[in-house]
Amino acid sequence: MFRITPIKNGICAIDGIYADGVNAGFKKDGFDVGFIRSEEEMDIVYLFTTNKFKAAPLKYVINKNITKTNFILANSKNANALTGEAGIKDIEELMEYLNKKIDVTNPLMSSTGVIGVRLDKEKIKNAIDKFDFKARNSNNFAKAIMTTDSFEKEIAFEVLGDFGKFKIGAVAKGAGMINPAMATMLCFIVTDANIPYEEMKEILKEVNEETFNAISVDGDTSTNDSVFLMTTRKADYDKKAFKEALKESMLKLALDIIRDGEGANKLVAFKIKNAKNKDEAKKAAKALTNSLLMKTAIFGEDPNWGRIASTIGASQIECNENKMIIKIGDVVVYNKGEIVFTKEVEEKAHQVMKKDSFKIEVDLGIADAEFTAYGCDLSYDYVKINAGYRS
Amino acid sequence: MFRITPIKNGICAIDGIYADGVNAGFKKDGFDVGFIRSEEEMDIVYLFTTNKFKAAPLKYVINKNITKTNFILANSKNANALTGEAGIKDIEELMEYLNKKIDVTNPLMSSTGVIGVRLDKEKIKNAIDKFDFKARNSNNFAKAIMTTDSFEKEIAFEVLGDFGKFKIGAVAKGAGMINPAMATMLCFIVTDANIPYEEMKEILKEVNEETFNAISVDGDTSTNDSVFLMTTRKADYDKKAFKEALKESMLKLALDIIRDGEGANKLVAFKIKNAKNKDEAKKAAKALTNSLLMKTAIFGEDPNWGRIASTIGASQIECNENKMIIKIGDVVVYNKGEIVFTKEVEEKAHQVMKKDSFKIEVDLGIADAEFTAYGCDLSYDYVKINAGYRS
Repeated sequence: MFRITPIKNGICAIDGIYADGVNAGFKKDGFDVGFIRSEEEMDIVYLFTTNKFKAAPLKYVINKNITKTNFILANSKNANALTGEAGIKDIEELMEYLNKKIDVTNPLMSSTGVIGVRLDKEKIKNAIDKFDFKARNSNNFAKAIMTTDSFEKEIAFEVLGDFGKFKIGAVAKGAGMINPAMATMLCFIVTDANIPYEEMKEILKEVNEETFNAISVDGDTSTNDSVFLMTTRKADYDKKAFKEALKESMLKLALDIIRDGEGANKLVAFKIKNAKNKDEAKKAAKALTNSLLMKTAIFGEDPNWGRIASTIGASQIECNENKMIIKIGDVVVYNKGEIVFTKEVEEKAHQVMKKDSFKIEVDLGIADAEFTAYGCDLSYDYVKINAGYRS
Repeated sequence: MFRITPIKNGICAIDGIYADGVNAGFKKDGFDVGFIRSEEEMDIVYLFTTNKFKAAPLKYVINKNITKTNFILANSKNANALTGEAGIKDIEELMEYLNKKIDVTNPLMSSTGVIGVRLDKEKIKNAIDKFDFKARNSNNFAKAIMTTDSFEKEIAFEVLGDFGKFKIGAVAKGAGMINPAMATMLCFIVTDANIPYEEMKEILKEVNEETFNAISVDGDTSTNDSVFLMTTRKADYDKKAFKEALKESMLKLALDIIRDGEGANKLVAFKIKNAKNKDEAKKAAKALTNSLLMKTAIFGEDPNWGRIASTIGASQIECNENKMIIKIGDVVVYNKGEIVFTKEVEEKAHQVMKKDSFKIEVDLGIADAEFTAYGCDLSYDYVKINAGYRS
């Protein structure tokens, strides 16, 4: 038995965690460099992009095999990706500079922005000079990592149960390039739960599959995607309660990322039911989130179930047109080979699609596996934002 | 030694081939039902969509195992897909009706348009009544199968060589939903080459891989994609000459389909060189044609090579940032980990992207396999056309 209650202050809700953002001149206005600092060393685990060209900050963490840290330096507007050995050396230099200002253990960097441009180290050093290491402004950190995001994304919960209590706080960024296997998406999760180190990665991976790996804005995978989970280990722990709180945190931030999808107006949950197995359910659900024809139909509020069916068929999973049922919201638009799509049904389904968020459900009628993926529409604005990006 | 010369009249360039289009009332104006007829039986082979929900006309051909025919009835505006058993019965009824009008052997149908709506048989019967079976209007047939296409797509060649001569003519349609593994794309190829039956399918498959399977407008696979190759076998044959002529025909039509891609303004060839093997080269080339970030960058004429690199990395093929070279046209924008993208280089690459068609080349530097895929940009108009489709 446990209760999960939302609390304020994002990652700074955890005792001993400091965070802030400053303007280093990468953005005209607003924060662009920030930090997360812990009074004491935290255990840290991470999940990085599957992209073969991992950005320098990711390589830096992998090379150093960092498992404990008390400091993360983050910046937006420059991904420090495809910058070769020089990109890694830049990080080393910055970490040394940082260490002169404040005592840090295994500090690491996290970057997002344009690919293939060297970091402006002077600007970042100036930002470090400006840091107030005693600040506890989670929201400013959330702002500092934003790129095309239109709002900051953070959450915190307190979890109380028979086992005792712990807190969890998380900050994320992401709005474009969100994809099948993570996104240009950064997420920093801090907890004080006394979770055994070997369980940290296992739980993070499992929850990630159903949250960040279940969302898609445009099907691309960035060079920088990272999810970090850190713990001060000062409070209590219960596996079930922790998993639940972690999922609530990550799902909230994942859905925020879709809601903030570049040019996206609608959040759609694609639920595949009664598939042969979970992999097939996932494959079909993700195919729906990534289909341009599906995404434009959603933008047009057009209950074109033929595109749903066609995408399922194209995804190469086991399916049978005489067993499949398709629903838009609660409206059955296709029923096991029977043509049920009358003008009246069409109008009802169209009304569902007028909402800001709704569910599309495909019951394959094959076996009993299911998966829900989350996607959004494709609007004129997506094209506009991405045809004009880079500055 | 042989020479391939363009000739007129599309499929009707072949002796004994008749074709026409009429208006059956599916479109307000213009042809929507058409036919291809041969004086004598032709051998026929076909490649159908990999979509698991194959449309009724495809099932009809598969069920009857048709290998010879002298008649194809085609319609636009209705795909006769996901229409169950009734959809197949509708075809049977129409084929019987046709047989009362003219003596046909194994006639078949080919449909494109909206999914999940029964065919209006009366309209099609009226169209059959209107057919002039002696007409030789390849262009009218090409018009009758158009959906969102803005121009008709046909080609014919005469091939002369030491071996003798033959002709080949082809008609295709397709503008949207063009994908990794074919498209809502219909293609009808007629020749008089005396090609052995067992070689027909083999050659069609091989050439299809480098033409229709190498193009992508939006990454979707339709329920109706079909390529038919038919021969009257009245002329001579040479394997090499035939393959070459078939490739020229199919590549011309495939590129026409991209040029006519819904809302597309630019035709881009994505060449992957020196990949580990052909499958990997293809995977990477197709990933580039399907990346929304790539497609919007092309629309914006933005030489954002970071998106090219990121897409290659995300495609999970073997690659190494210190071996890879990226060119936009002839402009090297990334060179083995070195940052070469100066303002001057950027401007040169931007000038290349201002053209209607250009090449993007990625030299992976791993081994020696290559593949070229063809794609287009993603514009506001793509969204407009697809958010408003269905009528």
